[in-house]
Amino acid sequence: MARYTESVAKLINELVKLPGIGEKTAQRLTFFLLKMPVEDVRRLAKALIDLKEKIGYCSECGNLTEKELCNICSDPRRDRKVICVVEEPNDLLAIEKTGGYKGVYHVLMGSLSPLEGVGPDDIQIKSLLNRIQRESRNEIILATNPNVEGEATAMYISRLLKPLGIKITRIAHGIPVGGDLEYADEVTMARALEGRREI
Amino acid sequence: MARYTESVAKLINELVKLPGIGEKTAQRLTFFLLKMPVEDVRRLAKALIDLKEKIGYCSECGNLTEKELCNICSDPRRDRKVICVVEEPNDLLAIEKTGGYKGVYHVLMGSLSPLEGVGPDDIQIKSLLNRIQRESRNEIILATNPNVEGEATAMYISRLLKPLGIKITRIAHGIPVGGDLEYADEVTMARALEGRREI
Repeated sequence: MARYTESVAKLINELVKLPGIGEKTAQRLTFFLLKMPVEDVRRLAKALIDLKEKIGYCSECGNLTEKELCNICSDPRRDRKVICVVEEPNDLLAIEKTGGYKGVYHVLMGSLSPLEGVGPDDIQIKSLLNRIQRESRNEIILATNPNVEGEATAMYISRLLKPLGIKITRIAHGIPVGGDLEYADEVTMARALEGRREI
Repeated sequence: MARYTESVAKLINELVKLPGIGEKTAQRLTFFLLKMPVEDVRRLAKALIDLKEKIGYCSECGNLTEKELCNICSDPRRDRKVICVVEEPNDLLAIEKTGGYKGVYHVLMGSLSPLEGVGPDDIQIKSLLNRIQRESRNEIILATNPNVEGEATAMYISRLLKPLGIKITRIAHGIPVGGDLEYADEVTMARALEGRREI
């Protein structure tokens, strides 16, 4: 690094640890922050600290929350009979953004990955089972990622829940809306064909 | 915004104020920060606060520093007879990165811009004059930006210093190294021709 003064060097050093931020971006951000009003920078610093100190996990579904129950679990309008199982809190947000889902969630906090030593006891599968046994549910939607770990996790959970006689579904794979058939990979294309529906 | 929990929403809200960071990037950064060790996030927050609290301007050249004099002005190996005049501290860094310049600097903290109401008294021109009158110098290099304001500033300063009989130079304009003649704009091309040198 060039002859940055100490505080500048330290901030750049911390910023480059973040994803997608290289030295050039870190320098640009730092010089921008230098010109920002001090209250704004303080508010950013406080938001960072609060993020780590105030946030915990919903005791019901594992979503991020500052309270005992998350926004969704504490909302009486949500249908508690349908649980959508996702890997991470940001997957939950991606589904919430569609605005079309009215059920509740269960956040696994990861996916099964024997290669990385992540087994069924390392993610929130037992708590999912408990929720289903405690209260009757109509449908469990498995919305883990469409990759090897996500598929294996969905398969594992579906086998575990089958004996309980609940309806278990998996989100559809296929060509993205607005996508081009020409550029779809073969696996997605095959899934799109398999999943075809009568119109 | 989707149903972010409060601390997440607040941090995203602060992050999107930074240049080049949209909501998607802010969300990605936030979820990354959530998984980061708390000490790392604290260190980042502290670096932000320190940036605003510890940094001031060098009493000699106007560069950023935590002390009375910046790293460059307090370095006895630097040639105090040559002053390179730049608009901002990051321009100084861009020159320092070349590793080829051994003189000192003068940071104007802006450029003349009548349209935005920035006149000679609003930038550090008087202090430059003081430095030159206090101590004899061999050369003043004008390294303001190659745009309208930067050129006007260089022109103004050169007229002001000419009577003092010091050598005044302007950084060269031309085709960037590795650039392609075909894609050079006409003004740059004209400057490259004007500035041609015998080989």
